[in-house]
Amino acid sequence: MNNKGILTVVSGFSGAGKGTVMKKLMENYDNYALSISMTTRAPRTGETHGKEYFFSTREEFEQKIEAGQLLEYACYCDNYYGTPREYVEEQLAAGKDVILEIEIQGALKIKQQCPDCLLLFVTPPSAKELEKRLVGRGTETMEVISKRLSRATEESEGIEAYDYIVINDDLEACVKELHSIVQNAHNTVERRAEFIKEIREELKQFSKGAK
Amino acid sequence: MNNKGILTVVSGFSGAGKGTVMKKLMENYDNYALSISMTTRAPRTGETHGKEYFFSTREEFEQKIEAGQLLEYACYCDNYYGTPREYVEEQLAAGKDVILEIEIQGALKIKQQCPDCLLLFVTPPSAKELEKRLVGRGTETMEVISKRLSRATEESEGIEAYDYIVINDDLEACVKELHSIVQNAHNTVERRAEFIKEIREELKQFSKGAK
Repeated sequence: MNNKGILTVVSGFSGAGKGTVMKKLMENYDNYALSISMTTRAPRTGETHGKEYFFSTREEFEQKIEAGQLLEYACYCDNYYGTPREYVEEQLAAGKDVILEIEIQGALKIKQQCPDCLLLFVTPPSAKELEKRLVGRGTETMEVISKRLSRATEESEGIEAYDYIVINDDLEACVKELHSIVQNAHNTVERRAEFIKEIREELKQFSKGAK
Repeated sequence: MNNKGILTVVSGFSGAGKGTVMKKLMENYDNYALSISMTTRAPRTGETHGKEYFFSTREEFEQKIEAGQLLEYACYCDNYYGTPREYVEEQLAAGKDVILEIEIQGALKIKQQCPDCLLLFVTPPSAKELEKRLVGRGTETMEVISKRLSRATEESEGIEAYDYIVINDDLEACVKELHSIVQNAHNTVERRAEFIKEIREELKQFSKGAK
């Protein structure tokens, strides 16, 4: 059997409900590990090192960049954010399917580093529904909503780089679908190479024996 | 939504239980159509034209070959067997997911004709289990079992041409997995091209409107 986990990168429009989908996925199934980002920004109240983020100094972060220990990184508002390679690789080696939630630029960098990762794009069933969800939150000004919509328009240009579209219409159905995409990926011929080799060898022995 | 069906080619070792898996798949889900082969051999008692096979004369069959109306064909024991293109295309256009059970040479020809088809290979969990099933039938001589095992050894050389391995250990689990592979395939970015185009256009309209 193939015991190595699969790295799945999840992106999607702001308002697509990615956060809720991830939370539900972790609740419903126990074979997943969420990748934890590293950042140089200060922890906020209630945030724990190794849970929300790995917090690090600027020096430590830059050393990791130099040493190739980050799968990707970016700088926002003077702070670094990145994906530590070691944590992801440890979880994969332990057989966990690792989920990494990140925007498209990061997703493309991850794909370069890990060509056999899966890229999933979560989207509401329509742009109308996306707008409804953004407006429906009731917490955003029209200016923010407008910015998010034009951000989504930009993001939609990159969807072809992904492997699968996951439509979040019904939460449970969406989580089930995401799970089944990752689980099926374990059975591609590439990921089953070892099983194929074994059964082939075994068959050779048997057909010799039967002659 | 993507309403066109997906063509799935199913192969597997003799003794892997493909027949039972196909039957159960048809029973459990109503979105599938089984491809029907055309043959020049005479109908056996109880066989109906358009059910087990499309029966045809040699002339008719050869005309179809000439006209490119067969997705693949082969000649066994002086009789032609082939896959009529029209029936498959009609079912796909009607939104049915078409299942075509065929051995590897045929599968490779189908893939050439229909590059976006899915190739699945059904196998028991081990060669030991395959031998057990072949012996367990109790209807075959050791000579026949030995021939099947060396046939399986040959077939195992071609597995890398397939997209997915489907292990038939537990029948219900196997059918469910096969179903989920085909259903997930509807959500690849390639097959969702129309949805992506639509949501992109719609987003452009909205973000213009929101400005």
